[in-house]
Order: sequence, then C-alpha cells, then structure tokens
Amino acid sequence: MYTDLRSDTVTKPSKEMKAFMLDAPVGDDVFQEDPTVNELEQYAADYFGMEAALYCSSGTQTNQIAINVHCRPGDEVICSKDAHIYFYEGGGIAKNSGSSVLLLPGDRGRITAKDVASGIKDPNNPHYPLTTLVSLEDTMNRGGGAIYDFEEIKAIRNVCKSYNLPLHLDGARVFNALIENNIPPKEYATQFDSISICLSKGLGAPVGSVLIGTKDFIHRARRARKVMGGGMRQAGIIAAGGLYALKNNITRLKEDHQNAQKLGTALLNIDWVEEVLPVQTNIVVAKLKTHVSVEELIAKCAKKDIHFMAFGEQTIRMVTHLDVNDDHIEYTIDILKNL
Amino acid sequence: MYTDLRSDTVTKPSKEMKAFMLDAPVGDDVFQEDPTVNELEQYAADYFGMEAALYCSSGTQTNQIAINVHCRPGDEVICSKDAHIYFYEGGGIAKNSGSSVLLLPGDRGRITAKDVASGIKDPNNPHYPLTTLVSLEDTMNRGGGAIYDFEEIKAIRNVCKSYNLPLHLDGARVFNALIENNIPPKEYATQFDSISICLSKGLGAPVGSVLIGTKDFIHRARRARKVMGGGMRQAGIIAAGGLYALKNNITRLKEDHQNAQKLGTALLNIDWVEEVLPVQTNIVVAKLKTHVSVEELIAKCAKKDIHFMAFGEQTIRMVTHLDVNDDHIEYTIDILKNL
Amino acid sequence: MYTDLRSDTVTKPSKEMKAFMLDAPVGDDVFQEDPTVNELEQYAADYFGMEAALYCSSGTQTNQIAINVHCRPGDEVICSKDAHIYFYEGGGIAKNSGSSVLLLPGDRGRITAKDVASGIKDPNNPHYPLTTLVSLEDTMNRGGGAIYDFEEIKAIRNVCKSYNLPLHLDGARVFNALIENNIPPKEYATQFDSISICLSKGLGAPVGSVLIGTKDFIHRARRARKVMGGGMRQAGIIAAGGLYALKNNITRLKEDHQNAQKLGTALLNIDWVEEVLPVQTNIVVAKLKTHVSVEELIAKCAKKDIHFMAFGEQTIRMVTHLDVNDDHIEYTIDILKNL
Amino acid sequence: MYTDLRSDTVTKPSKEMKAFMLDAPVGDDVFQEDPTVNELEQYAADYFGMEAALYCSSGTQTNQIAINVHCRPGDEVICSKDAHIYFYEGGGIAKNSGSSVLLLPGDRGRITAKDVASGIKDPNNPHYPLTTLVSLEDTMNRGGGAIYDFEEIKAIRNVCKSYNLPLHLDGARVFNALIENNIPPKEYATQFDSISICLSKGLGAPVGSVLIGTKDFIHRARRARKVMGGGMRQAGIIAAGGLYALKNNITRLKEDHQNAQKLGTALLNIDWVEEVLPVQTNIVVAKLKTHVSVEELIAKCAKKDIHFMAFGEQTIRMVTHLDVNDDHIEYTIDILKNL
Repeated sequence: MYTDLRSDTVTKPSKEMKAFMLDAPVGDDVFQEDPTVNELEQYAADYFGMEAALYCSSGTQTNQIAINVHCRPGDEVICSKDAHIYFYEGGGIAKNSGSSVLLLPGDRGRITAKDVASGIKDPNNPHYPLTTLVSLEDTMNRGGGAIYDFEEIKAIRNVCKSYNLPLHLDGARVFNALIENNIPPKEYATQFDSISICLSKGLGAPVGSVLIGTKDFIHRARRARKVMGGGMRQAGIIAAGGLYALKNNITRLKEDHQNAQKLGTALLNIDWVEEVLPVQTNIVVAKLKTHVSVEELIAKCAKKDIHFMAFGEQTIRMVTHLDVNDDHIEYTIDILKNL
Repeated sequence: MYTDLRSDTVTKPSKEMKAFMLDAPVGDDVFQEDPTVNELEQYAADYFGMEAALYCSSGTQTNQIAINVHCRPGDEVICSKDAHIYFYEGGGIAKNSGSSVLLLPGDRGRITAKDVASGIKDPNNPHYPLTTLVSLEDTMNRGGGAIYDFEEIKAIRNVCKSYNLPLHLDGARVFNALIENNIPPKEYATQFDSISICLSKGLGAPVGSVLIGTKDFIHRARRARKVMGGGMRQAGIIAAGGLYALKNNITRLKEDHQNAQKLGTALLNIDWVEEVLPVQTNIVVAKLKTHVSVEELIAKCAKKDIHFMAFGEQTIRMVTHLDVNDDHIEYTIDILKNL
Repeated sequence: MYTDLRSDTVTKPSKEMKAFMLDAPVGDDVFQEDPTVNELEQYAADYFGMEAALYCSSGTQTNQIAINVHCRPGDEVICSKDAHIYFYEGGGIAKNSGSSVLLLPGDRGRITAKDVASGIKDPNNPHYPLTTLVSLEDTMNRGGGAIYDFEEIKAIRNVCKSYNLPLHLDGARVFNALIENNIPPKEYATQFDSISICLSKGLGAPVGSVLIGTKDFIHRARRARKVMGGGMRQAGIIAAGGLYALKNNITRLKEDHQNAQKLGTALLNIDWVEEVLPVQTNIVVAKLKTHVSVEELIAKCAKKDIHFMAFGEQTIRMVTHLDVNDDHIEYTIDILKNL
Repeated sequence: MYTDLRSDTVTKPSKEMKAFMLDAPVGDDVFQEDPTVNELEQYAADYFGMEAALYCSSGTQTNQIAINVHCRPGDEVICSKDAHIYFYEGGGIAKNSGSSVLLLPGDRGRITAKDVASGIKDPNNPHYPLTTLVSLEDTMNRGGGAIYDFEEIKAIRNVCKSYNLPLHLDGARVFNALIENNIPPKEYATQFDSISICLSKGLGAPVGSVLIGTKDFIHRARRARKVMGGGMRQAGIIAAGGLYALKNNITRLKEDHQNAQKLGTALLNIDWVEEVLPVQTNIVVAKLKTHVSVEELIAKCAKKDIHFMAFGEQTIRMVTHLDVNDDHIEYTIDILKNL
C-alpha cells in the first residue's frame, strides 16, 4: 500500500476539490478582478479577524514577502535556529531582504520571550544590524510539530511591543496548532502583525499560501509580490482549491494528529528506536539507535512502498496528512515492527 | 457585447482546456515529481531545441530569474527604454539583482546591434557598472507588437558573442512573432542563451510562464525560483493549461493578427485618430488628435462594454486574443466609427 | 610646464595645509572621539545651517549613503541622465540600494520641476518602482560645470514637497556654484534634505567628502557608513585637510572660474574647435570638428605636459583648480593655438 | 596616568610616523597614480608573497569587499559565531552581499576542519543557500586574542579545496599571530585566497587596512571598493602611516604580548576575578565573579584614568598596544589590586 509520509505537502486534490476548482469563476488577478482570489483573500482575512490578505504561490513566498515588507537591508530578524524562514528558504532573508538573522536556540524550535528580549541589539551601535522583526513558527516543523504555549506568545508579543518590533507568524501549520489548543483564530491573531498560512500542507490544496495583515501591509506586500513575479493571472483556478480547503479541511486535521500519535507510540516500542519526540500534531520525529543506518531503513521501507525522510543526524521524520488513512498507518506500523 | 481589448492576459481557460487540466496527473513539484509540470518543461525545451526549462508563475518571474542568474549586483543590463523588464517589473532589475540598466532608444522598442555595441562599458573602469547581459523583447509590447528583424537579432548576437555577453529573450509574445515571420523556433532559439515564454497571454492558459535554457542555467534558475517563493506543489493542475495551450493555441494567433489588422485599418479612417502604428501582430496602438480626451473615450466605450487602455500620452492600446472573435471586432469598429 | 587639467581632484595638499594636518589633534572616530573630525563635521553643518554632518572617504560614498538612507530596494530615484550618482558611481544606486533610476534628459544635466513632476510614478501601481527620492547635482559635471537656476531648484523643491519626496544635493562642486550666484549657503541649503560636499575637488584637500542633514538622517548615515566600511580610526589627520580647505579655499574658486573663462575663450577661437559650452565655473567642455582625432590631440598635448580628458564623442574636458595658475593657462593656450 | 586599554585601535601616530606621512609623495589614487599607495600595496602583497593588494579605509571594508567578490546573493559564508565579519560589521554579509551565514561554535572563535566539512550544504538542494566561502579570523578578537593552530588551518584549507571553496582570512591581528607562532608570512599566506590586514590596530597607523589576493581578485575588489565609495584621492598621506607601520611596528608586538601576559597574571590573582582566558597575544579577557558589577568596575577605573570595555556577560576586555608601556601596565595592576 503506497504510503507517503515524507511531508503533508504531497497531498493531491480530491475529486470534490477539483470539481470546485473547475467551477470557480476567474478573472485577471493582476487587475484584482479574479472573484475567486478575492473571495479567498477576504475569507482568510476574516478567519483571523484581520484587514486584508494576499494569495501567493508558496509559503516561502508569503514569509519572504512579509520579511521584505517589515525589514530593509541592514536589519536583523530574530527567530529560532530551526525556523523554516532561515533553514529552508534558500537564504532568502539575506538574498531578498539584505537582512541578518539572530538565531535563538529554542525548545523544539520554540523561542522564549526572555531570549528575544536579550537578543535585541542596541540601535545606537552601528557595529550591529538593527533588530527589526521577530518571527515565530507554530507549529514548529523542525521541532517535530511542537505547539507554542499561547502564554509565551503573549509574552513575546509584549517584548516586541516594548521595543516597537512587529511580530510575524509563519503559520504553515497553524491550523494544526489551533485545532489542538482550541484558541479562537481571531484571538490568536491579535498577537501578530502578519500571518502566513499554507493551503497546500495539511489542508490539501494543490498550490498556495496566504499572507494576512493590515490593509497597508498587504498593499506593500502586493508590490513585493509583483517584483518577485508572484502575480498570477487567472489564479482563481488554484485559489479555489485553497478556498475549498479552508472551508472543508481544517477540523479533520484531528485525524492526522491521532494517526501521528499511533505512529509515535508504535515507534517508541521498537527496539532500534532511541527516542521519539512527544507527538503534538501531525509530525513524528524519531531518533534511531546508533547501530541503525537511516539510509538503509529508508531504502528498506521504500521497497515496501512506505516513504519518509531523514531529518538530521540519526533521525527520521514522518508526517501524516489527508492522503494517509487508518489503513496506511496500520500497514506502516506493521512493516516497521517486522523489519 | 462585452469586448475586452485591454490585454491578451485576460483570456479565460476554455472548457477543453479546463477538462485537460482536471485530468492531468499531479505530484509534488518541489520534489520534481509532478508529471505534468515535467512534461510541460520538456515540451517547451524541445519546442525551442534547448536543454531544459522551468515552469514559473509569471513572465515577470521568468525574466527576473533569468536576470538574476545572468547578473550579480554591480552588473548592467542593456535593453530598450521600453523593455518590459525595466518598465513593468517593479524595478526588479535593481531590487532582485542589484543591477543597473542601460536604456537604448530603439525603434518601437527594437534596439540595434550598433547601439548595443556602443553601450558596452569598459570593464576596466570601476566608475561604471559591468555590462553583463543584453535583453530583447519580441514582439515588443510597448512598441505596439513590433517584430524584430531576424537579421538584426543575429547581428546583436554577434556583438554579444564578441564581448562574451549572454543574450536573453523576453518572449512573452514570441509566438506572435514566429507565426508571422515563419522562422522555425529551433533556429530562432539558437540566437539566445535564455528565453522566457508566456502561457497566459495570447496562448490563453490561466497561469504561468516558462524559462528555457541550458541544463546548468535552469539548475541555477530553479534555485533562484525557490528563493523568490516561486516553487509550487501540485502545480500540474495549472501547468496542464499551459501544455494544452502550447499544443493547441499557437497557430490560431494568426486570427488575432487579422483582427488587429481590421481594428488598425478602421482606426486609421476615423477622423479623431492622428496615427496608428503599423499593425504587425495582435497589438494596435493609436495616437489620438489633441482635441480628444483619452479618458473620455475610454469611458464612453466602456459604457458600450468595449474595454481598452491608455498607453502613454494621447495614445490608446487595443489587444486582440483568444476571447475576441470577428463579432467583437465588428461590434467594436461599429461603435468606434459612430462615437 | 606640467599642467594637469584632467580634473580638480588631482590637487595636492599645500605646505600650509599639510602643516595644519600634522598639528591636528586626533582620536578614534569610531568612538566619535576624534576632535578634528568632530570639528569638521560641526563646521560643515553650520556652514549650511543644518543639524549634523558625517565625514566620509569620498563623494561617491556620501552620495551612496544618502541614497541608501533615503531609499529601500524597489524604490526609484529621479535624476538627470548625466548625474554622477548614476553615471560614475559603479551602478551603486542598484547595487547598494536596490533602487531604480528614472533618468531625465535635462539641459546640460539640469533637470526641471516639470520633468520631475511628470516622472513621479503612481504609488498604487505595483508594476512600477516607488518614486522615493529626487537628486540634483550643482554644478553639473557632465553638463560642463553648469549652475542651476535657484528658482528652478525652488520649483523642484515644491514638487518634492507636494509628493512628500526628499531632495538630495550632490554638491561635489556646490562651492563653485555658490561663489558665482552669490546665494548664501544657509538659504540655499533650506531647499535640500541632504547635501554631499566634496573637500578634495576644487577645495584641494587630499581626501574626503561630508554628508550633511538632520541629526536623525546623519545617525542613520553613520550606520550605513559603518556597513560600507567607511568608518575610519584617527581620521582627524585627513579631516584636518578638509577643515583647512573649507576655511581657506572657497573664495579663491573665483580664480579657477576666470582661468576656465580664458581657456574657453581661447578654444572658441581655434579653428579645429566646433563648439565650447558656455563656461560658468571651472569646467571647460569643447566639441572638436569631425576631422580632429580626440585621441591624437590628447597625445600631442601630453607630450607638451598638458593633460586633459576625452569626454564623450569628439569632446574634451578641461578643469581648472588650485594647482593651475595664470602661467599654466597661458602656456596651455599658447600650445593649443600652435598645434 | 591615562591608560587606554579599550582597543588597539586607539593608538595615535607617533612623531616619526607623522613626519614620514608628511613627506610621502602623493597623487590621485582613483587614477592609480599615488606612489605611496602603490608602494604600500606592493609591499603588503610581497610581504605575504601574493600578487596584488588594495588599500582600504577600514578592516570592515576589506572584509566586506572580500565577501562581496567571493559571494553573490543567495550564497552562504561559513565562519565562527564570534567572527568579526558577522558580529561587528553591521550585518554587512547580508546587506552588502545578500549572503547568509552558517555560524560554527568554535573554541575561542577558532573553528575546525571537521565542523567546516559538516557545514557545507548540498548544492543541489535549492532549499539551502549555496556554500561559497569559508572565513577565519586569526588572532580571534572575541576569543580573547586566540591564535589558530596552523595545522588546523591547513586541514580547513584541504576541506575548502575538496569542495572548491575559497578561504578568506580576517587578519586584523594576523601579525600578533605570526610573531608568536613564528610561521613565515609567505608560508602562512599560501593557505588563503584573500587576506585582510589592519594597519590601524596593533601596528599603530591612523587609518586603513589592506586586502591582498590574486591580481584578478584585486581587480574585482577595486570595483567593489569604488561602489562602496572607498576610493580615495591623495590617499598617500594616510597610506604612508600604514607603510611606516608595516616596516617598523611588527616585531615590537612582542612587547604588547608581554604586557598582556602581565595583566592577565595579575588579574588571575585578584579575588573578584573568576577566570582569565589564557593570554596568547595582546588581548586579556577576564570573567568577573557574580557579585561584581562590570559597569561599576569600569566606572571606578575610569576615575583613575584606566579605560577598558565590557565584553559580554560579566566579562571585561583589556587590549595592549603601542601606546601602552610598562608604566601603564604597572599602574593598572596597582590600581586593580587595590580597588
């Protein structure tokens, strides 16, 4: 049974989603005339109680645009050393925005208000870049899907406010966080100046992310998107997939979390597994005992049609999603146990 | 009769194209596993007899990536003062690539080998940026759809070769050129190091452009696209529209040209029209007599459901495309004559 | 008699200036503890009635820092197509600041309020870079030392104000302008947000320029200078040369202008000279008849120890300065007449 | 007795150096006609057995230019988390070169070949910036003047070679290293592609650093310097100070090291000192016991005319140099003991 646990980005659009996409009215979004894009942007903004939104082709693009609008060359972004914006976006903070990073250690990628405060640099000392932005990621991918404590987010927000720094959220998997900690999106969103959400991970849309913020921020983001070549024409066709996903696929993320729990529990009981990071959402990160070869394990499983990824030294990552059901999980556990 | 002559970007996907899109197999293109994207890229590369290609979300993106791969900060691009890459891409040459421009005057946006040669700067003089790239646009949008003389392109290519400069083509409407001058795409492409083609203009696909070049160039382009956030997941859905367009909608561009001819001829005979640029492809640019208000004309026509754009001082632009048929043209001519 | 008319940058420090430099107290300017640097900066700011100033290693650096503080990537600077900031600063507007340029034609490099106004782009159209800065150069080097009409400067300032755009002055030769048009520096300076002055051209100091503006602007400029590596340690030694020059060498610029007049008049009467730009300050630009080879002329004169530069097609430039006296001028005229 | 131990940058030019500066012949270095600058550049290149050199206004400038020539936006530099190029250059790696950093932990700022090797990223994965440069700092300022083991440098060089990566040296205090470990400069220099040396630290010149490399590298560096505004006119006046320093002030660095040893030993025996980093050159870093306030200690000593700097948490730094003699050391030790 083909089981793809490499990432929640591999989901393919369902029949229903495709039908919705086909029927969606479209227009030229560069003229802001695509009704489906407009609806998606309004829907996303309203969902978080914010003013405006912008549909983009990827989460890297929404994050990089946000950084580009908040920062100018010579500025510095504070984030976790494991943050997607630093680790997986091709050096974009430096390339796109000429900005430096201060990388905080963090616990499973979650940084603290205390560390943020001590990382802010003296703006009068020209030896240092100018601290200009703080960015969080929730859930934290490289932290194995760890969820931020909302009280810590509030504490970080307070630090930011006292230094007049905007706070950005890389919410590529924010719905996985919100479905678990039961914080209303509108309340959660009050802590951030800009939010990036991803439609093509757990939510299952084929393409796209949405950047959310104030009207003025989104106005500037639209300009940044244009220069990156992110403006699309009849984008409604794919935006429709995102709109469908937002309306239909959020609550079901609970199932992915239960599946991840099952996988995590099973792995814990396997003798060649050293440690499993406590499973909080849809990501399972397991450290293997030193005698096990990650490459061999991946190759062996691939032969059984089970796919997952190496994730740093002696470590593997499995991600559950819309296209992984109970049968896939049972099959995977069965294979893993009997390797 | 709703007639949209503002741009050939406003076309909406046909039923057949949509059906093709729905049926196209998809995968995660970030892992280069989307079969439709792969097919489109191979098809486009083969069409021009080049090695490799990269699907991107817009023509601005393909152009900006090409410039980014060819140039580094402190370099200079030579192009027409009317070039899309300078005029309509949000200052991206400077913002994305830190590169300067040398703007040549050109005839309807077509620059000459002589001007290119005299614009190349002494590489040993640090007062000047380093000339690194020459870029042509064919057909030339702001030149009213003017086609380059292929002999001039070859002459420019020779200048480039003697200075070891790559030559880029902004081929947003290159199919309009090739269908008219009957040059085989593979022969035409031998003159360029990189070519950007657009699927969402005359060809009628909803989203996307393709950048074409050598394997090494496209490898570097893929990296640049990633940092701009241009990597998409199950992009096959929209790439399918582009593949359909490439296979079905090129030869019919002749009809757009004939329609543009009719429009141009009609305009020439209207007394408030000062001048019409000779119509070569699907763009009609007319200069109005000084007593006519462009704004009022546009407003009056809009009331009759005919839409086009102001295009500089006392000038209007009309563009024919897939969604404009004989009836639209007749209707438009009729209204214009009787204003 | 060795006569160097290539540029007013070639002046060597006089004995008196050197003695002054040797005696100047110094400190570590990175700690802002160099008393001579501090005195020079205060003196320059006071001279123009502005708040603060920053000593830099060159006029390119003061201009580039000003642009860097005023603009961010994606912005656009409006200036003359002949402006030093575009033409001679290595593509720095794009490289250092990611900013585009709108090049206005100008009369001998002097742009008009009307052209500035019509060049400002619609800030709501993301196809365009964002107009953010206007920059003037007075006197205008590539315009043959042409002086701006102060009324035109005021008109440009009004346009800038109505669009909320800062106005920068590249005042590399502003003292040549002010000594001719008798406008008090403090009155002149009210029209600008930032001013760059050069100490090593007509004023005869060996090294340095000063950037002048508000306290906040200079605070940000200091940061930009640091990142460019422009912070120097015991810079007082060279700053002293600049201080001496500001105090002693401004009024004598009149002599350079008279010498340039003499040269210009003489050239006008030579039969192989086609045209001489009306001499307004210390720069003489002459166009040669087509049968004359600029290279040969330069070579012939060099053999007689007279040096000047080619300055575009069939054109030469001669610049008078502190190290050119009556004898040099007479000698030069004599040689030129009898070639 | 006024004793300034804040940095070795505070030294003032001696009478002899000043006299040498005054007598030095000068010219316009932008035309490469300044004989003293040319001599200094040749002298520095020869000293390290390299082809060419470039005089710059600061060590930040030489480092930033080197990075700018070696890297392009989207690239990554590997260095110690304590490296001056990352820590004290205003975020220039990102701002000037659009490049990311991989910060290695290091031992007193000295990174290892093993860590370098494991930090090099897969060039085929566009999620990552492209590893392009490795940079070392010897001696290591933030490591308390620690000297690299030459064998480790060679091992790092081998790693670089096998990945085709250039190796840069921030040699702001390289003479302090070479005088201690007795490695011939020419042998040492074979390990590097580019070397930045500082004339205004231990060597006592008022202004300047020199960047050294191949002819082609320096050609490109000259271009980069121009755009940063680092080109100076009659720079010979200050270059002379550097030339004098190179010829006269290297061997005497031993005295600074002995003085630093004395200070370090004395501090070790003071009861409020927790720890002193083993003194290897001219920098003394001491950690104070938790009950001591760094600010108060600095203030108290300042009242006695002894000046030094806080250097991170509970830590102070004292630096010996040309303007600190035995008397200053004895005085300082005496005061510290009796606080």
